[in-house]
Amino acid sequence: MVKLKLWIGAVATVFALGFIKFSDAYSYDTYYYTQKVDHFSFHNNDTYQQRYLVNDGSWTQDGGPIFFYTGNEGDIEWFAKNTGFMWDIAPQFKAMLVFAEHRFYGVSLPYGNKSYEDIKYLGYLSAEQALADFAELIYYIKKSTPGAENSSVIVFGGSYGGMLAAWFRMKYPHLADGAIAASAPVLQFPGITACGAYNQIVSRVFNASSPQCAASVRKSWDVINTMGNTTEGRAQLSSLFRLCAPLSNDSDVHNFKDWLTEMYGDVAMVNYPYPANFLEPLPAWPINVMCSHLTDSSLEGEELLEKIFQATNVYFNYTGQTECMDTGTQSTAGSLDDRGWDVQSCSEMVMPMCTDGVRDMFEPADWDYPQFVEDCQNNYNITPRPHQIEVLFGGTNIQQYSNIIFSNGVLDPWSGGGLLKSVSSSIIAILIDQGAHHLDLRSSNPADPPSVIAARETEKSYISKWIRQARRNQKYRESHKLNPILID
Amino acid sequence: MVKLKLWIGAVATVFALGFIKFSDAYSYDTYYYTQKVDHFSFHNNDTYQQRYLVNDGSWTQDGGPIFFYTGNEGDIEWFAKNTGFMWDIAPQFKAMLVFAEHRFYGVSLPYGNKSYEDIKYLGYLSAEQALADFAELIYYIKKSTPGAENSSVIVFGGSYGGMLAAWFRMKYPHLADGAIAASAPVLQFPGITACGAYNQIVSRVFNASSPQCAASVRKSWDVINTMGNTTEGRAQLSSLFRLCAPLSNDSDVHNFKDWLTEMYGDVAMVNYPYPANFLEPLPAWPINVMCSHLTDSSLEGEELLEKIFQATNVYFNYTGQTECMDTGTQSTAGSLDDRGWDVQSCSEMVMPMCTDGVRDMFEPADWDYPQFVEDCQNNYNITPRPHQIEVLFGGTNIQQYSNIIFSNGVLDPWSGGGLLKSVSSSIIAILIDQGAHHLDLRSSNPADPPSVIAARETEKSYISKWIRQARRNQKYRESHKLNPILID
Repeated sequence: MVKLKLWIGAVATVFALGFIKFSDAYSYDTYYYTQKVDHFSFHNNDTYQQRYLVNDGSWTQDGGPIFFYTGNEGDIEWFAKNTGFMWDIAPQFKAMLVFAEHRFYGVSLPYGNKSYEDIKYLGYLSAEQALADFAELIYYIKKSTPGAENSSVIVFGGSYGGMLAAWFRMKYPHLADGAIAASAPVLQFPGITACGAYNQIVSRVFNASSPQCAASVRKSWDVINTMGNTTEGRAQLSSLFRLCAPLSNDSDVHNFKDWLTEMYGDVAMVNYPYPANFLEPLPAWPINVMCSHLTDSSLEGEELLEKIFQATNVYFNYTGQTECMDTGTQSTAGSLDDRGWDVQSCSEMVMPMCTDGVRDMFEPADWDYPQFVEDCQNNYNITPRPHQIEVLFGGTNIQQYSNIIFSNGVLDPWSGGGLLKSVSSSIIAILIDQGAHHLDLRSSNPADPPSVIAARETEKSYISKWIRQARRNQKYRESHKLNPILID
Repeated sequence: MVKLKLWIGAVATVFALGFIKFSDAYSYDTYYYTQKVDHFSFHNNDTYQQRYLVNDGSWTQDGGPIFFYTGNEGDIEWFAKNTGFMWDIAPQFKAMLVFAEHRFYGVSLPYGNKSYEDIKYLGYLSAEQALADFAELIYYIKKSTPGAENSSVIVFGGSYGGMLAAWFRMKYPHLADGAIAASAPVLQFPGITACGAYNQIVSRVFNASSPQCAASVRKSWDVINTMGNTTEGRAQLSSLFRLCAPLSNDSDVHNFKDWLTEMYGDVAMVNYPYPANFLEPLPAWPINVMCSHLTDSSLEGEELLEKIFQATNVYFNYTGQTECMDTGTQSTAGSLDDRGWDVQSCSEMVMPMCTDGVRDMFEPADWDYPQFVEDCQNNYNITPRPHQIEVLFGGTNIQQYSNIIFSNGVLDPWSGGGLLKSVSSSIIAILIDQGAHHLDLRSSNPADPPSVIAARETEKSYISKWIRQARRNQKYRESHKLNPILID
């Protein structure tokens, strides 16, 4: 089973080149805050420098809110430059923008270069510790910035960052008045979401582009397996797919299939309505372009694989500049840190994934939890805690929380683990037709479908509501001394 | 400055003897749950056995709720036997009773006898870790007990246990539908509650008993100081107060005064309307009895101190069986663990205390934070985190939480750090006239004042409301599949 990654970071790079020209618009000051390595126990007094970025160009001290991005698995500068929605709406709200880097990513490494060397350091990489970092930082910013003490705070995040935004509002509602959680698969955990969801959605999107396309992919695995069985066939596959390193054994063939499988998921995540750069540039609606090569599912053998290659080429070589295909990577996105996410997947972000080849277009593969545990123990000396997230954050039982928007793109495979129905008047689900992975957090674009324009409007209206509510609460606290016995 | 303790444990023992005759009524089964030592980081996979007690004699599987006591700083059996309110109302609600022991207390020692030996063990004593223990335990009980999966859960606690109950509902509302937080000084933290509150309330209660009484106490310190200045005077003091160990220097005199100061606070906490056993038995309304000896504030010198001694004698020697006074202890209450609470006071339960001799009847003493930090570092290798609790739990900014009753006795010195005004329709403050420290959590008594009877009625009606609300939410979740995309 392919280990799937939360991919906001990688998705963000899609637009990295495009943003160079806007770099002036995304200017910020860089700060560091001294954080405790361990917020919840007291035997370790180590601290580290957490990086955060601030733009207060639009902010007004008389009540301007703070829009706070809860950084996820990557370099925070990259998220800052790729969450255009926050920048787009800051002037209207007179908001200060803060982007906080997640511990163990970017330069916010609690133990510097040693951070990933040993579980005794790496053990402090957890969502709970990261949320406490954000809490301390918000508390500090509000206390130390003249005029910010009574500012309302709205947290934003996409993908894992969206989970963090939602969880932050859930656990620290006194520090965040509302949360925009975009494409946050908060339900993608054992016993809550079926393991096949992700790959079924990938397949559904390919099938919607054309049934022949999904059928061609489904058919391709047997062809690859047959060719992969012989030395001659493996050479043929290697040549056909212009592989940098020829396939020399079963294991290579296995990895090759994983690489393809992962690509189908990735392109579904970034199936955006406008051209974008993801490693290599991608066209608008890249799945349609890929599927334009897969219109004839009656093809067999090498002829079919030639078409699969052409589809693959759309993703990995749209510019025609790629000399050979490297099955060792999906992405050269420098700012996404797979190391960290692999660790988090092993400890608490346990997200079962499987395929059955019937409801999806992939080879059948069960979720092999014992194998998963063994790998985590071997790789990191970590034993997974599969129910940790449900115990901490409630799974679907979140009616008692408030002021969170969960937005999901219908085209996004991660939507399978998202909250897709509102559960109360303040825990709101938004579905974005024609939306892939957190399209709504991106800067507005002329090619945006009406659904994402509407989603952003809804988000803005809730943000306004939450800010008004926070001001009312603030006034209430001021006018009602809550601790009235004391004189001194 | 006297180090004041949260005292529910000690208060509970007041009735320990009385309860022997009711022991059948307080019967339970004892269980142990395997808890992670560290819930929030991943380098330590140690576990320990958390003790919890269950009585399901009144529980019905078809919707009976779980009443869960969030254990505080002491042996959980002692809390179970001294929280009569839960036992009193269990039949009416058909409730299961669960009493969970707090880590590092009773027999729930994460590292056995070594638990208190080194900060590397003791570092795991924190409210956050204890709350996560409770979360895991409730999750486990609901999953593993046939018929309990959909049971609503109400958490109860008094004093520090009340803080934990409130905080548990705040952080884990998916696991607790409401909280009864009795005499929980959730605001007794730096920058929120003035340091003089506690001792002002003690003084107010003595003054209300009789102004001469408070004036006599206030006057006594100078007399003690004058006598304490000379060898002869110290011998006189030692004799007058029947001290087991004579005062031999300034430091002894200082400790003697602390011992008296602490006693005045303790008797204010247990100033109950009926006789009770606290170390030695106490009469009903013990402050009135003490003050019956302090009716003439015109007395001077030794004559005044003789009266102070008689008042002291009410507290430490009401039966006349005490041979001499031990200034080294306030309480022989075996089940209250001062060791643990001292540690918690140093790490995160930083509660400033001071006196000014004007608004209180004590010698002036500032809150000496630098000295406090130094002591914590020397004694435990712990550096206090004075704002930890505010960052985590919001201080007075808790309007966005719900379903908590904060009850406080007007006679209770800890009420100064309690939430005394409702902040919303579901964060409710109850003031109990004539109530000392969490009187409402105690079993009903013919001498109960109307205010505590009314408080318990209010609590019961909110518990009913929370249970109905939880059932509605449960039905909503059942009828609305929240994750509807999936088929498998």
